Order: sequence, then C-alpha cells, then structure tokens
Amino acid sequence: MTSLLESDVFLAFSSYATIVILKMMLMAPMTGYYRITRGAFANEEDLHLHGKSADKKLLRTHPDVERVRRCHQNDLENIIPFVLIGLLYTLTGPDLGTALLHFRLFAGSRIFHTIAYVGMLPQPSRGLSWALGMLVTFSMAYQVLSKVLYL
Amino acid sequence: MTSLLESDVFLAFSSYATIVILKMMLMAPMTGYYRITRGAFANEEDLHLHGKSADKKLLRTHPDVERVRRCHQNDLENIIPFVLIGLLYTLTGPDLGTALLHFRLFAGSRIFHTIAYVGMLPQPSRGLSWALGMLVTFSMAYQVLSKVLYL
Amino acid sequence: MTSLLESDVFLAFSSYATIVILKMMLMAPMTGYYRITRGAFANEEDLHLHGKSADKKLLRTHPDVERVRRCHQNDLENIIPFVLIGLLYTLTGPDLGTALLHFRLFAGSRIFHTIAYVGMLPQPSRGLSWALGMLVTFSMAYQVLSKVLYL
Repeated sequence: MTSLLESDVFLAFSSYATIVILKMMLMAPMTGYYRITRGAFANEEDLHLHGKSADKKLLRTHPDVERVRRCHQNDLENIIPFVLIGLLYTLTGPDLGTALLHFRLFAGSRIFHTIAYVGMLPQPSRGLSWALGMLVTFSMAYQVLSKVLYL
Repeated sequence: MTSLLESDVFLAFSSYATIVILKMMLMAPMTGYYRITRGAFANEEDLHLHGKSADKKLLRTHPDVERVRRCHQNDLENIIPFVLIGLLYTLTGPDLGTALLHFRLFAGSRIFHTIAYVGMLPQPSRGLSWALGMLVTFSMAYQVLSKVLYL
Repeated sequence: MTSLLESDVFLAFSSYATIVILKMMLMAPMTGYYRITRGAFANEEDLHLHGKSADKKLLRTHPDVERVRRCHQNDLENIIPFVLIGLLYTLTGPDLGTALLHFRLFAGSRIFHTIAYVGMLPQPSRGLSWALGMLVTFSMAYQVLSKVLYL
C-alpha cells in the first residue's frame, strides 16, 4: 500500500476525488437549509423543524428545494463516475501533468456547475460546465480502455 | 494485490463496505414489495404484477413507496461517498483501531437510519443517525486530505 | 501499481467497469434529447433550448423523459454497487474464468435492461435483466465476505 502513496498521481487523485465528493455531500445540508427556510418538507415527522404547529400543508415541494435536489442528483450522476473511472485511470500510471489537468478541469467545472445551477445563471453556463466534466471523464475512460482492454 | 489482503484495515474496510452496499441494494426489493402491496406503479408494463386487469389508475405514487425511495436515495447520497472516501482512507494506512471505530459507527448509523426512516420513528432519531454517518465520512476525508494533499 | 496491471482479472474488471459506467453516463444526453424533443424541462433557464419563446408551460414532466430518468436512476442504484463490490472482489484474487463470467453477465444484463426499459418491452424482460444484475453483484459480495470478513 505504501507504493501507492509514493505516486504523485495517486496523491493528486485522492485530493481531488475527496474534494469533489465533499462538495457533493454539502448539497445535503443545503437541501435541509432550503427545506426549513422555504417550509417545504417530504416527511411528516420533520414538520416540527419549521415550527411548533407541525402544519401538514408544509408537506409540499418548493422550486428552490427542487433546484438544489436536481443539482445534488446531477452531482451523483457525474462525480461518482469521475471518481470510479479516475481511480482506474490513476492505476494505469498516466503522466502526472496530464492527470493533473484532468483532475483540475473536472473539479473546477463541477464547482462552477453548482454555482450556475443554484444561482440560476443564464444558460449555457450550466450546460457548458456539465459538458466539460463529462468530457474529462470520457477522456479518462478512453485512456483506461486503450490501456487495459480485456473482454 | 496480495499485500492488500495482508492489511487488517483493508479486510475490515472490505467487510463493512460490502455490508453497507448490500443494505443499500436491499432497498430495491423493498420498493418492489411496497409497489405491489400498495398498488402504486411507475411503469405501464408493470401493472400486471398487481392483478390481471392492468388498471391504469395504479400508475400513481403512494406515500409508503415514496418513503422507501427517499431512504434509498439517501443511501446513495451517503453510503457511496463513505465507500469511496473510505477506500482512500484505508490506502493511507490508518491505525486499525481508529479505522474500525469509523467503519462500525458508519455501518451502525446507516442501519439505524433505515429503521428510523422506514419505521417513521419520531425525529431527531433519523436526523441524528444521518448526521453521525456524515461526520464519520467527513472525519475520514479530513484524514485523507491531511495525508495526501497534492493539488 | 504495475502489479495490478499484470493481473488479467484487474484488466478485465477495469474494462467492464468502464463500459457499464459509460453506458450509465449516456443516459444523461438521452434525457436531454427527450427533454428537447418532447418539450418538457425542469429549469426555467433551459426553456430557450426548445424555441425562442421560452414558454413557461414547458416547465412540466413528460412520460418519455421520466422513463429515461427512472432508467438512469436504476443504473445508479445497480451499476455503482457492481463497480464498488467488483473492485473488492477483483482485489481478493478470484479465478479469471469465474470473474469474467460475472463481469460479462452483468454488462450484458444492464445493456439489455436499458433496451427493455427505454423500449418499453413487455415484462418480465426488464425485471429479469435487473434481477440477473443484482444476482451477479450478490454473488461477488458473498465471495468478498467469505474471503475477507473482519468485523
């Protein structure tokens, strides 16, 4: 195991993978914040969080809550594939500079994607940041398949 | 590869990771069970599962089904980050006792979270078990970043 | 790291894992295609994609879009557990023939699952392909636990 920690590519991958996963996890408290401030809950047992009355009318959806949840879902659909394919890519021993370029572009694109999504920035800002993240993962997947293909 | 299997931390991680992933996967048959018993389906081609008539009125949502699906979604949002960050944490060679404490707390918190969610236990039981799982993953992420940071 | 690349099981796992993750990622552009052709959007800022008018009536759901999204969600719930448990399984050093059988059955079952879901094939085609994928992952999980169990 120590040999992995001597690889700069592995250190860089671990750093960026951890950062983008933490970014994804922060969507959960953000959803909670919007649920409480907007008064829009999914579970009956959560209603007391908004006030003492536990009004069942608050079992509803709210556009702000749904927006944060879509952003969270988009993270699941993009960040987890990046981490999984990125791990395989790292283990194929890529050039450090190339690997760093992939990791940095992905992390930057996903942080900007969240700002664009939650901040309702006009398109194509969100679309382009999503597409850049997809391209980074596709590029790593191509390099994995070209090195390891064994079907 | 044999060197990984000689590490007790890796054996422990593999055991707990497999167990929490299996727990997450069991939400799928549970959703199916509630869909059939409650008569609430998402796909037209599934209607015959409830009876011969294939009544289109059964293309609806049901609170019990939605509750299990939210629990499944919460697992995706928490268990997968735990496994990914836990793998990186394991590869940084932590102390066995510390690692076991993290893994056991997480597995316990997520099993209790499912019981609290599906069983509609009063808050803050579900909230606290969710927060404990998040804290375990944040703690591992902190230790990964403090050991490997390379940006 | 080079030792992993000398293992045929690891090469096979990396190939099949990358292929099923790519298949999952292709659901996102497919969702986009249906959103644009069916005129059913989730975000106000996306409305201009359908035409110049940005008609707010297009902020709606459409059965075809929801079907593709359910298929994508089912991929998240099944393909990610396969990749995570498959990685642990690969690291326990299984027999190459047995491992290839698992990986091929899973990849085939998920590709067929997507065809059955999006193509609305009559049941039990979708149900059986889903169950086969679950069984493959359960089988690998069983073999991981029987080799590494350390609680």
